[in-house]
Amino acid sequence: MRTIHVNTASAKYPVYVGTGLLAGFGKRLQKFAGKSRRVFVLTSPAIWSLWGKQFLSGFPKNQQPTALFLPPGEQHKRLAGVERLATELSIAGADRSSLLVAFGGGIIGDAGGFLAAIYMRGIPYVQVPTTLLAQVDSSVGGKTGVNLTSGKNLIGSFHQPLAVFADVDVLKTLPPRESRAGLFESVKAGIIRDPSLFRYLESSRDRILAGDSAALQRVVASSVAMKAEVVGIDERESGLRMILNFGHTLGHAIEAVTAYKKLLHGEAIAWGMLAALNLSRSRQLLSEKEALRIAQLIRAFGPLPSFRATVPELLEAAGRDKKNKAGTRRFVLTTGIGKASVVEDVTDAEITAALEPVLREARP
Amino acid sequence: MRTIHVNTASAKYPVYVGTGLLAGFGKRLQKFAGKSRRVFVLTSPAIWSLWGKQFLSGFPKNQQPTALFLPPGEQHKRLAGVERLATELSIAGADRSSLLVAFGGGIIGDAGGFLAAIYMRGIPYVQVPTTLLAQVDSSVGGKTGVNLTSGKNLIGSFHQPLAVFADVDVLKTLPPRESRAGLFESVKAGIIRDPSLFRYLESSRDRILAGDSAALQRVVASSVAMKAEVVGIDERESGLRMILNFGHTLGHAIEAVTAYKKLLHGEAIAWGMLAALNLSRSRQLLSEKEALRIAQLIRAFGPLPSFRATVPELLEAAGRDKKNKAGTRRFVLTTGIGKASVVEDVTDAEITAALEPVLREARP
Repeated sequence: MRTIHVNTASAKYPVYVGTGLLAGFGKRLQKFAGKSRRVFVLTSPAIWSLWGKQFLSGFPKNQQPTALFLPPGEQHKRLAGVERLATELSIAGADRSSLLVAFGGGIIGDAGGFLAAIYMRGIPYVQVPTTLLAQVDSSVGGKTGVNLTSGKNLIGSFHQPLAVFADVDVLKTLPPRESRAGLFESVKAGIIRDPSLFRYLESSRDRILAGDSAALQRVVASSVAMKAEVVGIDERESGLRMILNFGHTLGHAIEAVTAYKKLLHGEAIAWGMLAALNLSRSRQLLSEKEALRIAQLIRAFGPLPSFRATVPELLEAAGRDKKNKAGTRRFVLTTGIGKASVVEDVTDAEITAALEPVLREARP
Repeated sequence: MRTIHVNTASAKYPVYVGTGLLAGFGKRLQKFAGKSRRVFVLTSPAIWSLWGKQFLSGFPKNQQPTALFLPPGEQHKRLAGVERLATELSIAGADRSSLLVAFGGGIIGDAGGFLAAIYMRGIPYVQVPTTLLAQVDSSVGGKTGVNLTSGKNLIGSFHQPLAVFADVDVLKTLPPRESRAGLFESVKAGIIRDPSLFRYLESSRDRILAGDSAALQRVVASSVAMKAEVVGIDERESGLRMILNFGHTLGHAIEAVTAYKKLLHGEAIAWGMLAALNLSRSRQLLSEKEALRIAQLIRAFGPLPSFRATVPELLEAAGRDKKNKAGTRRFVLTTGIGKASVVEDVTDAEITAALEPVLREARP
């Protein structure tokens, strides 16, 4: 087991990455829960039927958690769902000393963290991410939230967990496509800040995709460590944290234009990274050789599903992105393997030129 | 104009209390809004028709705020309303650098502050409270939130405003009953922490109830100063801030049992303070003379509307109060004029004995 320490302005907490964490979770949680806390667990029906028994096994008989459920799918990551769950918490007698465990993928983690952020103005919570995407990215850093009809994650809070438990054993039940999609956030971590992780992803692709435990632990731990470092420096995304959005400006736009149906989040981010890479190249921010290696690594975790979109649609959707500030168009560019920076002055013409080859490649 | 400085762990901000603040608000806001911010104002249709023109008059022609509306009534202080408003913000192009002004009574302030807390994970906001209750209490301290069907304010955030502008001129359009109800939070401020305010409320009751500007400024400023001091010491209500709940444990229960229809918030708190006073007396925490003065001051700002409730109903409703921690029943008691403390060991029998005379008095 590896332990990564997240140390932000508002909280310090450990992220445990390892195998067999789930069976011992109830005992490990004692350290965070204390005797008087009641434990509630938010999960999905599918995760609970696969792993619920093991999850519960480590809890003492007299302190079994109460389970709450959110159905799968982005359409349930809404305020109405959070309101129902909050009402269930209050009827079950949850108070400010209760502890919520978010046990599931990114939607459970985002909605569960937000539920914990706003229930009685904030209760403590623990993340137990069960997808690769959630383990390498969304469970760490305290971003929580839900969607509006007008955009994803437009409602939310910064609320750091007490701890994160990432058990790579749980990833074995993931569909391969979902695993690959999650790995794009690790690819991003390598591109923007961790050249050693980048090389590891290049050299160990096959072991990683085969689900080798040691390889997965290495990838999850390094991705989390990169994020922990960035979030430790800039918790509220006023500066450095923006580099984590590499590939996300256009990735989010692609997700929006394809109505969140064609592509998994990681896949859209992969397409977005290819476009951001084109933009970095056209500004001659990195060598052709580095650009080629980056593009190759992204494609190595493909195939990327095709989609249809036009440049104007994507520009319009990118305009609504919440990272934009008072009219300027922000963009994260890579300046070499392991390096990234935020630029404020990207023009629509540059974005168009960067997007066109990507949209041709993506066309079905 | 008086300026009170609030200085909490998470933020520092001024509270301005005075007359004629509204006409100059647009100009004053420049200091907080800067040039690039877009300004949105959340208000109620009634407040806007009375004061909207004056509110807008101080803004430059090219920076007129966009108005959003929440209909009056506790039933609109819900997540569905916040979601609609957030969607309106996003469609209107509000981003993280936009500023929200909550211009209205307690519901506007609570819901508007919460909207600002969760829109794009937090945008800045300014409180412009228009009721006495909001000016003396709810606009200061950063508590924001909405109701669940299972309880009031069960959803929320701590989110401090950039500034609070309390213009006592606006109070002139308040119904007298609402003014009196708001004054009970000032009476509470005097009882728990400010003997000088207590004496002023005793000696100047008639001027205050007649709406004298100087008297109202004195009362609002002193109430805010008391709250600012307490919140500065304990922003998140882990200790001292709990004394602000004097009268609120049973007051909230009375509101819940009467379905929020019979009594205004301040009136329910007044009944709750009378019960808390009985409890303090039965524990001999203060002299009979002090107890009598406190009861007289509370009644001096009456009459308190009658209601029907039974002790078991109120105990049950008080059990759901979010100030309770892991089963113990907390209570704020006064230990003399200007003094209060939190006790953890109050029994149902003591509460019953304290409530019975109050319920007899309240019976229609």
